[in-house]
Amino acid sequence: MPDTVAHGLLAGLDEIAGTGRDLRAGGYSRLLWEPAEHELRAWFSERAQRLGLDVEVDRNGNTWAWWGKSGPNAVVVGSHLDSVPGGGAYDGPLGVVSALEAVARLQAAGFAPTRPCAVLVFAEEEGSRFGVACLGSRLLSGGIDADVARGLTDRAGITLADAAATAGLNPAHLGRDQAALDRIGIFLELHVEQGRGLIDLGEPLAVASSILAHGRWRLSFSGQGNHAGATPMTGRRDPMVAAAHAIVAVQQAALASPGARATVGRIEAVPGGTNVIPSSVTAWLDARADTDDQARAVVADVSAQLQAAHSGCTGTVVEESWTGTVTFDPELAARLALALGGVPALATGAGHDAGVLAARVPTAMVFVRNPTGISHSPEEFATLADCLAGVEALDTLLRELL
Amino acid sequence: MPDTVAHGLLAGLDEIAGTGRDLRAGGYSRLLWEPAEHELRAWFSERAQRLGLDVEVDRNGNTWAWWGKSGPNAVVVGSHLDSVPGGGAYDGPLGVVSALEAVARLQAAGFAPTRPCAVLVFAEEEGSRFGVACLGSRLLSGGIDADVARGLTDRAGITLADAAATAGLNPAHLGRDQAALDRIGIFLELHVEQGRGLIDLGEPLAVASSILAHGRWRLSFSGQGNHAGATPMTGRRDPMVAAAHAIVAVQQAALASPGARATVGRIEAVPGGTNVIPSSVTAWLDARADTDDQARAVVADVSAQLQAAHSGCTGTVVEESWTGTVTFDPELAARLALALGGVPALATGAGHDAGVLAARVPTAMVFVRNPTGISHSPEEFATLADCLAGVEALDTLLRELL
Repeated sequence: MPDTVAHGLLAGLDEIAGTGRDLRAGGYSRLLWEPAEHELRAWFSERAQRLGLDVEVDRNGNTWAWWGKSGPNAVVVGSHLDSVPGGGAYDGPLGVVSALEAVARLQAAGFAPTRPCAVLVFAEEEGSRFGVACLGSRLLSGGIDADVARGLTDRAGITLADAAATAGLNPAHLGRDQAALDRIGIFLELHVEQGRGLIDLGEPLAVASSILAHGRWRLSFSGQGNHAGATPMTGRRDPMVAAAHAIVAVQQAALASPGARATVGRIEAVPGGTNVIPSSVTAWLDARADTDDQARAVVADVSAQLQAAHSGCTGTVVEESWTGTVTFDPELAARLALALGGVPALATGAGHDAGVLAARVPTAMVFVRNPTGISHSPEEFATLADCLAGVEALDTLLRELL
Repeated sequence: MPDTVAHGLLAGLDEIAGTGRDLRAGGYSRLLWEPAEHELRAWFSERAQRLGLDVEVDRNGNTWAWWGKSGPNAVVVGSHLDSVPGGGAYDGPLGVVSALEAVARLQAAGFAPTRPCAVLVFAEEEGSRFGVACLGSRLLSGGIDADVARGLTDRAGITLADAAATAGLNPAHLGRDQAALDRIGIFLELHVEQGRGLIDLGEPLAVASSILAHGRWRLSFSGQGNHAGATPMTGRRDPMVAAAHAIVAVQQAALASPGARATVGRIEAVPGGTNVIPSSVTAWLDARADTDDQARAVVADVSAQLQAAHSGCTGTVVEESWTGTVTFDPELAARLALALGGVPALATGAGHDAGVLAARVPTAMVFVRNPTGISHSPEEFATLADCLAGVEALDTLLRELL
């Protein structure tokens, strides 16, 4: 019934298309527990309940919608609803909407699962509010220390603990949730592709083979704040200049390491006045590579250049998060690729909750082609035909696995 | 009566020391028409009224306190109460408090002025909210087009016109105010020095000889927003890298032009996520030099390097403000220096409302030594002894001029 599927899928994406629009950056800004993200999770709960699913929020703010009884050995399919600032419409929501639609389709077909099934929405996948990507899956699986997580702060200085309490969670209960984790037999995530892999292959879908090693580092530069007009150039200790040299070094380090990617997308100068030499500048480094060693070598290269202490400033590098190279369960990937008629396997540079869970449970991903090859941007896109192929694929895989 | 002066001066600085503290940047953030700046102007009005002065706010938001009848041919003495973000306690307020204290001292001595006198507080001297420094004096004297000014926006996108209306002004009445300007016979501004000139001279006070040519330019870089992990390094169009090259070019252009100063103190990336290649980055350039040609040559040098279009991005340069080299009335400066017992004359790199008014009326400045040599920073300082010398100087100069 492709018309129904098209209707349901479009309805899902359309229903949330007005939520969290960012008029400054373009696209969407849906940060954890801010009004837009709250609204999307409320929409998810309402939509899941209409399908007769039992909705629960776990100790870490992840939202589960159970089709039948909860765990163990469940097939859990999901993604996230939060976004980067100014992100696209598909990154996260496509996986959630497609999972709901696949369940609706199986229900309409009278399919009776033989094992538990849930649709799962992870919290703070992008790390856009508290700085650590895949925070919900890391907390669930013990991939981040609960005390470290509680102390994370957003740009306004609000701690995760305080924000969690405001959102109705008990901050003391944040952290590894073995009982919740033990319910997952297989985790499956459908996601819009964030690069050009499927464009190059000329295919609408792929299963994931691996994720690059990746992490985030905070680069802090401290100098001497002073008057921009009254301070001669010689003798200045200008941390903006030190940060600029570091940003150039980041690019050069990645270019010198084939396959590696390194980016500074966020920078803050204090105090940030036009006529003020800053007293400090912070830049955030996102670095990724095929292997753990390669990613760490890129960061070591950048760090070594900071130690050269450009412009009389001090520079420090602090790791904010780290995830080694992920290889998805090859047997499961092969089984699913076969079930989908022989779709290709594809590596990705983008991190996902599925990558975090892969260390704990059998995990697989399905990528949907993005004809722009652009993501984390309003230009991110997927055609309706490819989105429908994604729903068909989840339908097929749930029939295979349930 | 030095004890009374010390008391009054300290009381003035102390009374406002709690207003506008910036706990993030350190120091003070007192931006035009924001609560802290409102509070300071209310404090000024109250204090002036206690001295029997008649307080009025002109069409452009500048606050005048008249000792006796208003203009013409008045001696007007003043400065500003707004600050850069994270600025010091003296830049602006020292001149205002010292002027009030000098008037109080003359009143207590039974001095009877033979010409009108006012204490004047200019609005938005730092340009920290709407981007154009000395905005109040530029509007008053016609140094900025009123329509251009009305369209200026703050970081939240609020126009000057809307903010002025909220502050109780009529935005249609913003702009050149010849009647107000015609009242000024001489303008005198006392200001903490913002460099090391008086430290090097070993003197507490100087009169101003000149101000460097200076302006502000907005450097905008546009590229392709994309995913930080899924986008290979080759083929990226990353405006953060383009901005970093520009910041290095700014420093190099100024270093290559002896005496010039060029600074990037403010930068904004859109959307500003750690895992997002920005779609655009804006950096603000503050450039100054001994001559107009030299300052413009530094900016031309930076612009030429932007045209090289680093990293596949487009870069544009837009002038936000410009003030040519100011030479203060040499005859008036010599007369005042003599009245003060032969204090030195000093050039400065810092812009002032006095520099804007110098094109219209005889204008002079008195600098008070800053033992740190640092300004636009919490480290800005002046000793009580030097502050008292400043009040004594204003007392002497008002006796000389009134």
